[in-house]
Amino acid sequence: MRIIDEMGRKAKLASRQLATAGEKKNTALRAIADALLANKERIIEANNTDLENGRANGLSASLLDRLKLDEGRIKGVADGVLEVAALPDPIGTVISGSTRPNGMEITKIRVPLGVIGIIFEARPNVTVDAAVLCLKSGNAVILRGGKEAINSNKCLTAIMQDAVESTGLDRNCIQLIEDTTRQSSVELMELTEYLDVLIPRGGKGLIRAVVENAKVPVIETGAGNCHVFVDESADIDMAANIIYNAKTSRPSVCNAIETILVHENIAEKVLPVIKARLDEKNVEIRGCETEYLDYKLAVKVVSSIEEAMEHIAKYSTGHSECIVTSSYKNAKLFTSTVDSAAVYVNVSTRFTDGGMFGLGAEIGISTQKLHARGPMGLNELTSVKFIIEGDGQVR
Amino acid sequence: MRIIDEMGRKAKLASRQLATAGEKKNTALRAIADALLANKERIIEANNTDLENGRANGLSASLLDRLKLDEGRIKGVADGVLEVAALPDPIGTVISGSTRPNGMEITKIRVPLGVIGIIFEARPNVTVDAAVLCLKSGNAVILRGGKEAINSNKCLTAIMQDAVESTGLDRNCIQLIEDTTRQSSVELMELTEYLDVLIPRGGKGLIRAVVENAKVPVIETGAGNCHVFVDESADIDMAANIIYNAKTSRPSVCNAIETILVHENIAEKVLPVIKARLDEKNVEIRGCETEYLDYKLAVKVVSSIEEAMEHIAKYSTGHSECIVTSSYKNAKLFTSTVDSAAVYVNVSTRFTDGGMFGLGAEIGISTQKLHARGPMGLNELTSVKFIIEGDGQVR
Repeated sequence: MRIIDEMGRKAKLASRQLATAGEKKNTALRAIADALLANKERIIEANNTDLENGRANGLSASLLDRLKLDEGRIKGVADGVLEVAALPDPIGTVISGSTRPNGMEITKIRVPLGVIGIIFEARPNVTVDAAVLCLKSGNAVILRGGKEAINSNKCLTAIMQDAVESTGLDRNCIQLIEDTTRQSSVELMELTEYLDVLIPRGGKGLIRAVVENAKVPVIETGAGNCHVFVDESADIDMAANIIYNAKTSRPSVCNAIETILVHENIAEKVLPVIKARLDEKNVEIRGCETEYLDYKLAVKVVSSIEEAMEHIAKYSTGHSECIVTSSYKNAKLFTSTVDSAAVYVNVSTRFTDGGMFGLGAEIGISTQKLHARGPMGLNELTSVKFIIEGDGQVR
Repeated sequence: MRIIDEMGRKAKLASRQLATAGEKKNTALRAIADALLANKERIIEANNTDLENGRANGLSASLLDRLKLDEGRIKGVADGVLEVAALPDPIGTVISGSTRPNGMEITKIRVPLGVIGIIFEARPNVTVDAAVLCLKSGNAVILRGGKEAINSNKCLTAIMQDAVESTGLDRNCIQLIEDTTRQSSVELMELTEYLDVLIPRGGKGLIRAVVENAKVPVIETGAGNCHVFVDESADIDMAANIIYNAKTSRPSVCNAIETILVHENIAEKVLPVIKARLDEKNVEIRGCETEYLDYKLAVKVVSSIEEAMEHIAKYSTGHSECIVTSSYKNAKLFTSTVDSAAVYVNVSTRFTDGGMFGLGAEIGISTQKLHARGPMGLNELTSVKFIIEGDGQVR
């Protein structure tokens, strides 16, 4: 039997226990937070090995920074775990219900998905973030992180497993694939017997590879080619302010904008104001389309809102788009027509985020339409079940 | 450009119009119902060609019956279309909403999925059923039916397209792939650029092939290995009655049972009663496991509810399971532990059906956990979108 099959089998078994674990899940989460703090030296030591290997392999300074765990970051991760423990438990929520004409009572309730696979890249804090969101929502998780963080990930996983076990839950609620070759990632993508869903977290290349190759159901996350359309009736300062924020507050994230579309009747007035603001951060302004994830921004002048929406329909990845306008009619037209996960009127696209939307936590941002769309919180890690009660009804 | 790409492109365009078509969709549906009745001779003629070909190719009597469309069946299909027209429109429903601390207002609303592919087998009425559910939920559909019904399907699709167009909507809301080779079905499974979801409707082989080979998101429907567990405290007549109904009322459907599990403390009393009832329909009683889809039933005696639930966890396809019991505790244990789409207490599994659950219509029964589980109605053919309104909020 392959290791992955054994892990799948154990995860399935653990998921059955977790499905009805109730408050025990929170006890386990608090134990994880405590254990992370109690073992911080051990974590930092393992992380140092990754950092040394990373330096030896010529990782860039920014990648090394993403990889790094220090005392402050470990405290941040542990605090995050406690925040998840404090969230309401989604499992068992009654979504709807009715009594049918024959007297049988139907209740639709929220249940865990079962076993979730997460494939991710360098940041070791994802190991903990993803594991605790899965645990809280009653799911067993199989993690497959990048090779750069393997020592940190092994250490974090062992600490979490021990903590979980100390509270009486199955330690296999959380498992890590230690083999970081391509083979192990392919095996996970094809683990149809055990995996209920696979969520890739990382760059475009990773997500594309998973969507193309997985045989298990996948939730596509991430890539954003986001737009701001400055309508002819826009407040000029508001438009410049939103564009400045949506582009420069954190250019490397998926809800940052890549393109602005400007109505021709306001272009002459608004473009100098926008340019002046963007010059503060040395943003390079261009005339074409792509996800720069950098201080670069494309600009296009359009002759109507329809042309702007056409452009968005053609180039957008369906993540987040914004209209800046003072026209009620155009605001309504834009929100009803533009087909993206988050459609904004006079608000920066940077708010597309589970925390900002009030979901309490986030496992990723779905850019597909099936199952979940936009920021995914705990509810998006669940499925449903119908319970039908009666006294002998037959059909 | 391949035909399938051209169809995908047209479907995407049509779906954008459909997304905001509102009441026009119902006008189109009523036009479809009228057109089906007005063109019944033409439909019967095309269907006769399929029936003749089927006879020449040695199709079984039961397959020929499923293929057949006569005046009564066409009337039934048209009535079904009117029922769908009368259902509430799911699109635009507000699912939730809140005002965030910074004053921005978030509304989560229901939107169409976009473009839906349906792969199905012999029954031509599925062509109309599936098309109208997609249209009602604001989705463009690409249909790929079996070769046995190709003449009927072409005729029905042309009638629906003309009817849709006569009401001012894009006729490409509904398209049929006329090529019934394996190649066309593979092309549809890989149409990632245009297809938001693919739903197979048919036998196990078809569903397996789609789940294994599709690169687009799939909703797995159908296969049911359903169980009834007769607990030691069961009412004997109720148990026999539910088993008789769940097995014999329509053995070929997915919510019929294949296996009964009987508590050893009641086996001696209940089994003769069950056998007497099943003998009325000449049901063959066996000792092993499979989906018979026939008048065959497996029986296993178990020593506890835990053993019954273990058995179900191992062999069930997660469709529908039932406990017959008078124990409150065991009813609760069974419904909270058994992980199937529909879990019954003292009710026949035959009720797992969109109509019976009050959904008004059904595109299939999902046996996966992602996106939809159990009977899928109009809501399950939708996605969501977040609309965020404000007055210049930045992060």
